[in-house]
Amino acid sequence: MKIVCSQQELLNGLNIVSKAVSDNTTMALLKCVLIQAGNGEIRLTANDTDLGIETVIGGQIEIAGMVAIEAKDFMPVIRKMDDADIVIETDANCNMTITCNKRKISLCGKPGDEFTFLPKIEKKENIAISMMTIKDIINKTIFSIGNGDINKVMSGVHLVIKNDQMRVTTLDGHRISICRVNLKNIYEEQDVIIPGKALNELSKILPADAEKDVNIYFSDAHVLFDFDQTVVVSRLIEGTYINVDKMMSSDYKTKVKVNKASIIKSVDVSMLFSKEGNKKPLVIDIKDNVMELKCNSPLGSMDDFLDIEKQGDDIMIGFNPKFVMDALRAVDEEEIDMYFINPRSPLYIKDENEKYIYMILPINLS
Amino acid sequence: MKIVCSQQELLNGLNIVSKAVSDNTTMALLKCVLIQAGNGEIRLTANDTDLGIETVIGGQIEIAGMVAIEAKDFMPVIRKMDDADIVIETDANCNMTITCNKRKISLCGKPGDEFTFLPKIEKKENIAISMMTIKDIINKTIFSIGNGDINKVMSGVHLVIKNDQMRVTTLDGHRISICRVNLKNIYEEQDVIIPGKALNELSKILPADAEKDVNIYFSDAHVLFDFDQTVVVSRLIEGTYINVDKMMSSDYKTKVKVNKASIIKSVDVSMLFSKEGNKKPLVIDIKDNVMELKCNSPLGSMDDFLDIEKQGDDIMIGFNPKFVMDALRAVDEEEIDMYFINPRSPLYIKDENEKYIYMILPINLS
Repeated sequence: MKIVCSQQELLNGLNIVSKAVSDNTTMALLKCVLIQAGNGEIRLTANDTDLGIETVIGGQIEIAGMVAIEAKDFMPVIRKMDDADIVIETDANCNMTITCNKRKISLCGKPGDEFTFLPKIEKKENIAISMMTIKDIINKTIFSIGNGDINKVMSGVHLVIKNDQMRVTTLDGHRISICRVNLKNIYEEQDVIIPGKALNELSKILPADAEKDVNIYFSDAHVLFDFDQTVVVSRLIEGTYINVDKMMSSDYKTKVKVNKASIIKSVDVSMLFSKEGNKKPLVIDIKDNVMELKCNSPLGSMDDFLDIEKQGDDIMIGFNPKFVMDALRAVDEEEIDMYFINPRSPLYIKDENEKYIYMILPINLS
Repeated sequence: MKIVCSQQELLNGLNIVSKAVSDNTTMALLKCVLIQAGNGEIRLTANDTDLGIETVIGGQIEIAGMVAIEAKDFMPVIRKMDDADIVIETDANCNMTITCNKRKISLCGKPGDEFTFLPKIEKKENIAISMMTIKDIINKTIFSIGNGDINKVMSGVHLVIKNDQMRVTTLDGHRISICRVNLKNIYEEQDVIIPGKALNELSKILPADAEKDVNIYFSDAHVLFDFDQTVVVSRLIEGTYINVDKMMSSDYKTKVKVNKASIIKSVDVSMLFSKEGNKKPLVIDIKDNVMELKCNSPLGSMDDFLDIEKQGDDIMIGFNPKFVMDALRAVDEEEIDMYFINPRSPLYIKDENEKYIYMILPINLS
């Protein structure tokens, strides 16, 4: 194989596919990026068998061929080359020579024959959603994913498509996040659980572009995202997701409107005192048109007062401040609506149209 | 005690004195910053007993007093306050209340009576050197300090003042760095060893200001640096420094002029292959007007060619690339002169006037 690419093209491609390189594995090929040059295309692939990513980069093919190369050896070399054309050449034993200006680097590659290629997904119906929307909906829900220890499905993101609606749900046993978006067309119904890790990596490599679409395809066991010159394929999690609808309630006794920046600042300070170790709650004490936020720990204490608009009863309730913070940060609006029922019932942070709903269970204060 | 300071003043002051806060200690007061309000001054002090730093910050004193507070509790709180006036108040039990806008934080302080204050240094003769010069000369030598395991003096920086010259030397057994600066006056002779840690912290808090001076004072056991509203006092290392003059040589068989940016880039790439673990040398092979840099390791290899101007013999010699890199990075000039004698003798990187000399021992290639 012999190819010529600019440093920039190579680096961009490697940054994309390396998200699917496995670090913790004894299988050498899972740590590799496969470079394939042929049919007028230079293709980079990585696949940890749960998640696979493939991207096509620009460049000239002088001799067609393929080679697998460990990402942790190859990427630093490409990163340190000059911003110029890089020639990558391999011999019959997969020894790789990387030449840039007068500098020549040698690395040991591996034959690509036994590389685990991406599963073939039949591209039936495609669901087209803008890159921006996909990236946004992932970032607005991924934080409340569970670790899957109790129930494997909780380590996934529940994605439901029905008519022209997409609903994304995550939950971790203490909180539920739900986001909805309108699609441009009416689609066949889908109900799948996508591993959180796959969507996390997808959101990192997706440009925040509102004009360009991601095409999504489903098979029985996989989901495929197709955008630009890149394909991301993830295995689906088998099983039935938890029915969250019966856990939701739209009743409330107290509704509060509060400035997002102010409450974020306050919750952030409370996290200096409420740490993982001590499990001290952030206490929210609502009286009249003031929300008092309090946190008391052996390290010290905080006491803060925010102006609010309130409807309904006064209430005092405690939370893990990190859970409140994650939800607050995911909201775009400058003013936030919070709905309370009683000190033992969940807090709901949601907008009027329920485009987003964040449910957070309280900590018992008594 | 009750004081009012802007968040910015407090943070700036804390960032300065916290460099002398001890992390690894069982003595609670060494982890503290002492706040003293009195005589119209708000003074912050930290002292790990080797290094002590004191700085005066702006603000109003409403009630004079003092309190010691753990830096790791206090600093994050101040950092997270609003960019506004902060009121700090203590009661008779040293309980501290920090108020900013409507937010109130409580922390437990400690009485300052047993705090280790900075040693009193009699300010006899002051040596005035610009902030920029001090910062620069530290950064140009500190990297080749030893760890002091073999000889305590090697963990220090040797500073000699004679007439209107200051000479700073560090060495670690593999290399020697020497820098000289001209002073504005003729001073009494000084020959001291300052702990590397103290100068490292000093260089971090010194502004790179060529117009303003640092005043330096010496006592038998201490050195004091006085600048802006800040005083840094360090204990000196006892003992006699190694005589490096007899290790230096101005003979050479090969003189090479090379572009700094090019050789830095090349040595940087070689460090992908020559790692701490494998001890593979960077081989410099000088033939005619070309310098070949080579590194061969189980991970892979590099081969690079740089254009040079050469006087004298061809030579092939090996080095730890990190040592070469440290010296190269410390030089300001765009073109660098390197002097070689033979493959078993040191490399000297120096300018014509010997304002800086970097001596690096080679690695035996055979």
